[in-house]
Amino acid sequence: MDRVIVIGGGAAGMSAASRIRRLNEHVRITVFERTPLVSHAPCGIPYYIEGLFDDYSLFMTYTPQFFMEKRNIEVKTGVTVEEIETKDRKIYVNSNDKKEVEEYDYLVYATGAKPAMPKFPVNGEVFLIHHPADAEEIREKLWSTRKVIIVGGGIVGVEMAEALTKKGKEVALLHRGKWILNKVIDQDMAEEVQEEMKRVGVDLHLGEEVIEVNAEKVLTKSGEYKADAVILGVGVKPNVQLLRDSVRIGETGAVWTDQTMRTSDEYIYAVGDAAESINIVTGKRDWEPFAPVANKMGYVAGSNIAGYPMKFPGVVGTIITKFNETFIGKTGAFIGTGVKIKGRTRARYYPGGTDIYVKLYVDEGSKRITGGQIVGKEEVLGRVNTIASLILKGGTVEDLFFSELGYLPAISQVWDPLIVAARQFLRG
Amino acid sequence: MDRVIVIGGGAAGMSAASRIRRLNEHVRITVFERTPLVSHAPCGIPYYIEGLFDDYSLFMTYTPQFFMEKRNIEVKTGVTVEEIETKDRKIYVNSNDKKEVEEYDYLVYATGAKPAMPKFPVNGEVFLIHHPADAEEIREKLWSTRKVIIVGGGIVGVEMAEALTKKGKEVALLHRGKWILNKVIDQDMAEEVQEEMKRVGVDLHLGEEVIEVNAEKVLTKSGEYKADAVILGVGVKPNVQLLRDSVRIGETGAVWTDQTMRTSDEYIYAVGDAAESINIVTGKRDWEPFAPVANKMGYVAGSNIAGYPMKFPGVVGTIITKFNETFIGKTGAFIGTGVKIKGRTRARYYPGGTDIYVKLYVDEGSKRITGGQIVGKEEVLGRVNTIASLILKGGTVEDLFFSELGYLPAISQVWDPLIVAARQFLRG
Repeated sequence: MDRVIVIGGGAAGMSAASRIRRLNEHVRITVFERTPLVSHAPCGIPYYIEGLFDDYSLFMTYTPQFFMEKRNIEVKTGVTVEEIETKDRKIYVNSNDKKEVEEYDYLVYATGAKPAMPKFPVNGEVFLIHHPADAEEIREKLWSTRKVIIVGGGIVGVEMAEALTKKGKEVALLHRGKWILNKVIDQDMAEEVQEEMKRVGVDLHLGEEVIEVNAEKVLTKSGEYKADAVILGVGVKPNVQLLRDSVRIGETGAVWTDQTMRTSDEYIYAVGDAAESINIVTGKRDWEPFAPVANKMGYVAGSNIAGYPMKFPGVVGTIITKFNETFIGKTGAFIGTGVKIKGRTRARYYPGGTDIYVKLYVDEGSKRITGGQIVGKEEVLGRVNTIASLILKGGTVEDLFFSELGYLPAISQVWDPLIVAARQFLRG
Repeated sequence: MDRVIVIGGGAAGMSAASRIRRLNEHVRITVFERTPLVSHAPCGIPYYIEGLFDDYSLFMTYTPQFFMEKRNIEVKTGVTVEEIETKDRKIYVNSNDKKEVEEYDYLVYATGAKPAMPKFPVNGEVFLIHHPADAEEIREKLWSTRKVIIVGGGIVGVEMAEALTKKGKEVALLHRGKWILNKVIDQDMAEEVQEEMKRVGVDLHLGEEVIEVNAEKVLTKSGEYKADAVILGVGVKPNVQLLRDSVRIGETGAVWTDQTMRTSDEYIYAVGDAAESINIVTGKRDWEPFAPVANKMGYVAGSNIAGYPMKFPGVVGTIITKFNETFIGKTGAFIGTGVKIKGRTRARYYPGGTDIYVKLYVDEGSKRITGGQIVGKEEVLGRVNTIASLILKGGTVEDLFFSELGYLPAISQVWDPLIVAARQFLRG
């Protein structure tokens, strides 16, 4: 193996490149990245727009220079890959309108996701919160508005609603689902979030079917909304363009991979938001376009390319987001019986405790935990993580019940809300 | 089964009583408790002394009235059990100097722990932070002091140092160990805590061997310390007094139990701080005198007494405490190779992130996680819990690495500190 080419310098691609270099000092590794940024992720965009930080370079975990100097990885930014010739293991790149051909022994396909195109027409300048490369321009424009409409109440919609209300904007959120974050949590869990959104003045419209989006106007089945700017957050889809005709595309629409992250072409690995995997709970193909999964896929692909066999066990689907101080987390699939409990975050006598809601999904036959949802103001992440780890290990409600979770009156209860939720499924 | 007697109305005893009632409407259940409090736990005492709450009744999760009225459990407070006659299944009680005999079909022994007696002499009035029943008096006395010496730098010592410094007292902490919390975490992890203690003015003396403790003076090998009050926090031991001669006492000094929480006497179950169990990591007998374990032991014993077989899988030993905003957590045993990493709690660009230290112990042969230690200012509990759950399931470092932990820039990093720690043990 003399040469590895990585297409896409985001989290997954740079993770793969770094892992290969770690295990192999000699192979030539080249990363082609369309934008000026590498090891970037879009997760920070809402915070940048909120103004929580101004140093744009912080979107990158490491700079191209870092990878070149410290890890001996060639990084070519501002370069578009136009074609992959899989038979001859070549790619055609376009760098400042100069066409070049590059050969590879192994290719890592890490082109990420792109905004899904909505079914309704979109006219004029509408903002997509997708790539840090656009964040500076978007921020400047949004800061000069007074009123903003967000179309889509998924993760991006909710996080942008927080960012913009904190920035003092009037925000209307139009969402097709019956409840906010309807692809993340159940309706009975979402209500807490909706209350908080309304409390800080978000003009929330649920079950709103959009007909047409314009730069300063949105037309829906129930009316017309006007604003100074419109943000579109209707989801993303895998960017499989360059491989569509040469490797197997999975049922999720992303590039099919086996557990080594290899595609149907033995010299091409796919990682990150462009790749699909298996869901550990359902056993079905799944696509989870989130940075931690992307990083690990890159790590696994890099290990395998470098000759250290490693298997990616699959995804469970963990998501955590927040609206102001209300944290919303989920993990797993919601299969079987779901039971919701309301707990408290601190001992009764300790000041500042708040309600926390835990919904646990369990397969009643095997008693295995299939999923969990948590909404609360404190210690949501850790509880979601505990469930996520147990799901990976095929844990049952009894395993959760007997997990020796820590107790400190200032931040938990002696019967942790997770234990209380698990207890609902025990006999008697 | 007509009658169950529970000795000790703390967390474990009331948990057992409640579980039995839940599964059996008819059996007569009587709890004998020495103090006026039931379903109490000492964990709240430092916060009460700090003045975070004033309502003394909050030490009880539920009142005796609640158990009597809502759960049909007889609760006799202020009653001392003087003897257990195991052959005839009788107990002798002393209630206001009136002696009575009570018969049982099953007995739940839940007498808890008591302060360990130090090897050095203790003269005059010295404070033990042990039972909520004494908290009111101790608080009143400590509030009128200016300078307090705490002897013992374990959990109680550290929590009392926080409470008293926040209350404006001058605090000297004398600890025999080379580092604070030396039975909880390693020296390299404790240093962060010690820094914080010194920063807020705790006069910390490590490796300090006490010769004699008096009401207002402590004599050690290296000198003499004076104060207005002395608190003794040198550990606890199981209260096995009433069963010492009639059932098997385990190697930890607590009452031996099998996995159903039954003692060597088939009609007697022992639960909570009076009982020992098995450590899941070491396979050895272990004693973990903490409320969550106590509650679950009670639950298991209650289930078994009521005819619903259930096994207590054992303990892993999870502890979480804090000094001001520095949280200290551990779980498991520290066997095999320990690797410490320093991470951050938030994305680089998100304001307010702090350092977090994770030390993971792994058996290099099997790659199983044996233990973990975490010190940091945010999200310590959840990370300890995640490790605790994995240990219960026999999880390896690869299981931790592939756990799909949530990522939100405001409260975590894309490579979670736990994942980074696990990664140290992967090949290459």
